[in-house]
Amino acid sequence: MNKDVLNGLFRPKAVAVVGASATPGKIGYTVVKNLIDSKYEGNIYPINPKASDILGLKAYPSVKDVPGFIDAAVIVVPSTLVPQAVIECGEKGVKGLIIITSGFSEVGQKDLEAQIVQSANNYGMRILGPNIVGSLSNSDKLNASFAPFLPLAGKASLVSQSGALLIAIDAATYTRKVGFDKLISIGNMADVSIADIVEWLNEDENTTCISLYIEGLKDGRHFMEASRKARKPIVALKAGVSAHGAAAAASHTGSLAGAAKVYGAAFQQAGVLQATDLDNLFDTTLALSLQPPMNGENLLIITNGGGVGVLATDAAEKYGLPLKFAPADVQAELKKHMPEFGSAKNPVDLTGMAGNEWYADSVRFSLSHPWVDGLVVLYCETAMTDPQEIAIAIHKAIQESGEKNKPVAVSFVGGERSAQAMTWLVEHGIPAYGAPDKAVNALASLREYARIKEMAHEDTSICKNENREQALKVINAARAEGRESLTEVEAKQVFTAYGLPVTTTTLAHTEDEAVQMANKIGFPVVMKIVSPDILHKSDAGGVKVNIKDEKEVREAYQAILSNAKAYKADADIHGIAIQEMAPWGTEVILGSINDPTFGPTLMFGLGGIFVEVLKDVTFRVTPVSTSQALRMLGEIRGAPILGGVRGEAPRDRKMLADTICNYSSMILDLADEISESDANPVLVYEEGKGVKVVDARIILKKK
Amino acid sequence: MNKDVLNGLFRPKAVAVVGASATPGKIGYTVVKNLIDSKYEGNIYPINPKASDILGLKAYPSVKDVPGFIDAAVIVVPSTLVPQAVIECGEKGVKGLIIITSGFSEVGQKDLEAQIVQSANNYGMRILGPNIVGSLSNSDKLNASFAPFLPLAGKASLVSQSGALLIAIDAATYTRKVGFDKLISIGNMADVSIADIVEWLNEDENTTCISLYIEGLKDGRHFMEASRKARKPIVALKAGVSAHGAAAAASHTGSLAGAAKVYGAAFQQAGVLQATDLDNLFDTTLALSLQPPMNGENLLIITNGGGVGVLATDAAEKYGLPLKFAPADVQAELKKHMPEFGSAKNPVDLTGMAGNEWYADSVRFSLSHPWVDGLVVLYCETAMTDPQEIAIAIHKAIQESGEKNKPVAVSFVGGERSAQAMTWLVEHGIPAYGAPDKAVNALASLREYARIKEMAHEDTSICKNENREQALKVINAARAEGRESLTEVEAKQVFTAYGLPVTTTTLAHTEDEAVQMANKIGFPVVMKIVSPDILHKSDAGGVKVNIKDEKEVREAYQAILSNAKAYKADADIHGIAIQEMAPWGTEVILGSINDPTFGPTLMFGLGGIFVEVLKDVTFRVTPVSTSQALRMLGEIRGAPILGGVRGEAPRDRKMLADTICNYSSMILDLADEISESDANPVLVYEEGKGVKVVDARIILKKK
Repeated sequence: MNKDVLNGLFRPKAVAVVGASATPGKIGYTVVKNLIDSKYEGNIYPINPKASDILGLKAYPSVKDVPGFIDAAVIVVPSTLVPQAVIECGEKGVKGLIIITSGFSEVGQKDLEAQIVQSANNYGMRILGPNIVGSLSNSDKLNASFAPFLPLAGKASLVSQSGALLIAIDAATYTRKVGFDKLISIGNMADVSIADIVEWLNEDENTTCISLYIEGLKDGRHFMEASRKARKPIVALKAGVSAHGAAAAASHTGSLAGAAKVYGAAFQQAGVLQATDLDNLFDTTLALSLQPPMNGENLLIITNGGGVGVLATDAAEKYGLPLKFAPADVQAELKKHMPEFGSAKNPVDLTGMAGNEWYADSVRFSLSHPWVDGLVVLYCETAMTDPQEIAIAIHKAIQESGEKNKPVAVSFVGGERSAQAMTWLVEHGIPAYGAPDKAVNALASLREYARIKEMAHEDTSICKNENREQALKVINAARAEGRESLTEVEAKQVFTAYGLPVTTTTLAHTEDEAVQMANKIGFPVVMKIVSPDILHKSDAGGVKVNIKDEKEVREAYQAILSNAKAYKADADIHGIAIQEMAPWGTEVILGSINDPTFGPTLMFGLGGIFVEVLKDVTFRVTPVSTSQALRMLGEIRGAPILGGVRGEAPRDRKMLADTICNYSSMILDLADEISESDANPVLVYEEGKGVKVVDARIILKKK
Repeated sequence: MNKDVLNGLFRPKAVAVVGASATPGKIGYTVVKNLIDSKYEGNIYPINPKASDILGLKAYPSVKDVPGFIDAAVIVVPSTLVPQAVIECGEKGVKGLIIITSGFSEVGQKDLEAQIVQSANNYGMRILGPNIVGSLSNSDKLNASFAPFLPLAGKASLVSQSGALLIAIDAATYTRKVGFDKLISIGNMADVSIADIVEWLNEDENTTCISLYIEGLKDGRHFMEASRKARKPIVALKAGVSAHGAAAAASHTGSLAGAAKVYGAAFQQAGVLQATDLDNLFDTTLALSLQPPMNGENLLIITNGGGVGVLATDAAEKYGLPLKFAPADVQAELKKHMPEFGSAKNPVDLTGMAGNEWYADSVRFSLSHPWVDGLVVLYCETAMTDPQEIAIAIHKAIQESGEKNKPVAVSFVGGERSAQAMTWLVEHGIPAYGAPDKAVNALASLREYARIKEMAHEDTSICKNENREQALKVINAARAEGRESLTEVEAKQVFTAYGLPVTTTTLAHTEDEAVQMANKIGFPVVMKIVSPDILHKSDAGGVKVNIKDEKEVREAYQAILSNAKAYKADADIHGIAIQEMAPWGTEVILGSINDPTFGPTLMFGLGGIFVEVLKDVTFRVTPVSTSQALRMLGEIRGAPILGGVRGEAPRDRKMLADTICNYSSMILDLADEISESDANPVLVYEEGKGVKVVDARIILKKK
């Protein structure tokens, strides 16, 4: 990120509009008018070779004719004229280009798009777009877009990959009462990426929360890095989670991964809160932009109505912040501000008799009590109270408590008077919602944000049991044969090169060699056909287990060979694998895909029926440290099984986490080589007894 | 339900206010004023012994002094005066009493409450309340409550168990633009229940959708019956789903059941849609009150913005209505109403260039095409279009299509202009929402309602393999010994009396008898200690399996006895059970609780780790027919396991369903005897090979 250039792009002191027009209805007219209407205080230079002035401003034939400096140029000329415009801006010393014009990669004109990016970068310029609505900033009084007006002012900034949605959200800020400082349309992301803007907004003094509408990232890892480093909360709505890749997957892991799961993992790892829908994006943005994180689990709810109290209690459980009863001293104090039949437990029910004073007293006391980590205040509109007075009482009590590090959210259920009181609260920095569960969910988001911040201290050191040279030797040998998948024996050799504990497996080419190897490994052994032409080994009669002595080895050798030939006469047979027969353990599966957006991504789940029927798996973008892997083990629904159930001893989670860490190193180090992989099953033994990878599969990247 | 009496209660032609007051601020004043302000057209009779007129109306000392008839009396006098007021109303021939007064069972005055109900019923009157806000009806211009005004007019009617929430919702109808015909506060439900009102609203000409806020039902089965018979959609928000009973459960099933699960099952069985939160209650009510059910799976989405189209696509998958591509002829026609770069697949993207005509043409065509079962129309506010014109175009196109049996929902994302256009749409019968996923969820609700209607034709015939006498003999014998739980042998005798296929189990009192029984059953057998004092048989060394011959029977007999004596010297030992050793099968669990609200309720789940770790179970209020049981089998996450996985043959689902049906008959027939029960494990064999109940447990009701 070049901060000076991006400052010029997003907070310009002077703006040119290349393609400005005097004809109402044209975008070149709308942009100039919007800059004027938004009361932009820098110079506005309309650029049009045929006009002398536009909307009362002097027009110039080219940016090069403008007497003063230009920070940003908004470009609206047809796509064929954009390259020349870019060159002229470069020669003028413009910093940033806001290219509204469409007709680039979105309609297949990838070369034209690459050309203007190259050209701009040569001059040290950055491009926002092309194919965008523009960029808006309340604190700069800048509407450099064809969206009709600046949004309701607020402390969050939104980046949107959909222009139409940005325009609609712009209008919706006024009805929803959720304000933004900046709205940035990002379009084709030919140059400036969402990651770049996250980095820049993290430094922007007028932004307290970064809000994103994402359809698809280009560089997932840059986005993760920028988000992880940000000191401001980030909330993202990812659209298109149901649009799974239609391509058939070559591995088990490939068939279980989808955009939703990989993006979900990446957001979690990058500390990005994921919005569930458009309403939730607004609701969460409001909370994150106005309130501090919630640094503990103790949520207190104050209400004047039992009904909404119960709904909020349900919501607290649903959103992961289950209520606890308030301690005795809290209850004793609160009892003073309610009638006999009220309740001081949690939710605290002041009853319908509650007026301004009771609200104020209980809010002030609760917020200053050390047990309380966050507060939700609910109010049901009554005939006897004035919502605006209740709002003022709540706000005043928060001020008087002196507490600045505990979040508060409010919900008023009622009509127009309540709506107005909630607008007033939001204007005074207190997020307010029309339904009790939304206020609870707002606190849950602030709690989640605090947890993310805590996780930043987690150990992220990576395992380094690498023998890259050995792995590449195996892979290159397979490629030399024109293959794009490794045999089990080869895959295990690659696994071994990265410290993964595979069952001992050697390749016998003769019956005698098989006997010798079996004796060395120790009985019983498993024998399997090894042939790139036979993928379904069991179906071909190519697997024999529990072989107990030399005689059985010889019998199995002959049987497997003859079965294989009967199955496929011209199969290329590498030999027969002689394999240690691992004792029974808890089955798990590890695997990987090379995600087009995020690169090598690891999957973990319980094996057998759990993965096949329940698809009970969890993902991580690599690298994955041992600490992070331990957390993965707890994320699946079947997690208690690793802790030991039905009288079994706990499984060796530490060794399993180490194995995940090594697996992560392997697929990251071999990112250019491995497309997909599975270790299935991996057997996990009792604590201290380790794990064994029983079967291995690697699909290579096409080269 | 006495329809005439309830008509008098909810749609009175003349109303008395007992406790009317001339003093502003008093409830007796507010109610009279509200009746006047709502322009009630029947006679209003203020009753007050000390006033001659109130708010311009002639007042009477008692209802008995009123010259004309009185249908309903609103009672606001203090609780101690209510009994006398009830008697006077009874003598006057009043039909229904709306008792606003509080101070009854909610503060422990159960006798007083029972007394007024008894007294009212003796006169043939019904009581709404006590402890309520009152009753409001737009079509009757009746505000017989202390809520400040009639709600926004609409076609749904709401029953609320929370008075405060009812008042808040009353105001919220105007800001949310969701109208109601009636708002009924139900309070303590001393007499008229939610079930009674559901039955009555089902006959009410001004109600198209019944909307419920429920904290806790009193008679669950009456509610289920009334709801099942209703010909109108019902949507319920159940509050308090997180408040699990804190009492320790005696059975496995008891520990897995909670209010949320049992209510969820009951709602599903009764055809009641369950709202997820307050917003969803409003949203679903709007859809159900205005639109027909969706009688097929084909949802078409029309949009002018790709972004909201993608969000709606995600929502469609999330809410169980995944999108399919429209057929070729639909696409071909739609392609005519969009630019080249639009998309006619599904979602149909008319692009930001879409104006009124394109919307109208594509809506009209789509709705009249036989492939389309339901339509969602999305619109992102743009600078170039007028939301109101788009709304008019959509409405006109729907009219012109002539289609009345396919639902439509709309979402406009934008500001004030869009909000106004959506209000207009709702006023014209088209549900409209501020976010695309809500419009999709509205159609999902209408689809769910259609599925519920289809299910009404399901076979509900009950299994009748009963030998009640035999079961009671076993139970009474145990009770005679002062026990409240049956031994395994006894429980299996009860199970057998209801046709449940238990493993053959007989009780041996001597070693020789054990040998004789084992020979009769056939080896191998299982032997278990039978003692009401030893609940954890395995822990006591009281179980031996896979006993293969007479010698082993004798050894096991001695070993079990001596282990049992070592474990608990004074244990009352009934003998040793000799039991058929069932071959391995898929483990499932059946069980029951006697729910305080719904009575005997059955649970089904996969056994072992599935139930212990994943709690993958499903519930049904009894009775459960074989057809209904088959549907239960498909509801658990592990359902595919019964279909056969990893090369196994499909399990005998038919016999398992029959077993569930018999189990249901048992717990329903013995509802007065059985508190909780488990059949765990039940082994399910291949199709045609049946099931076996291996272990049985029955906890008796305290008497």
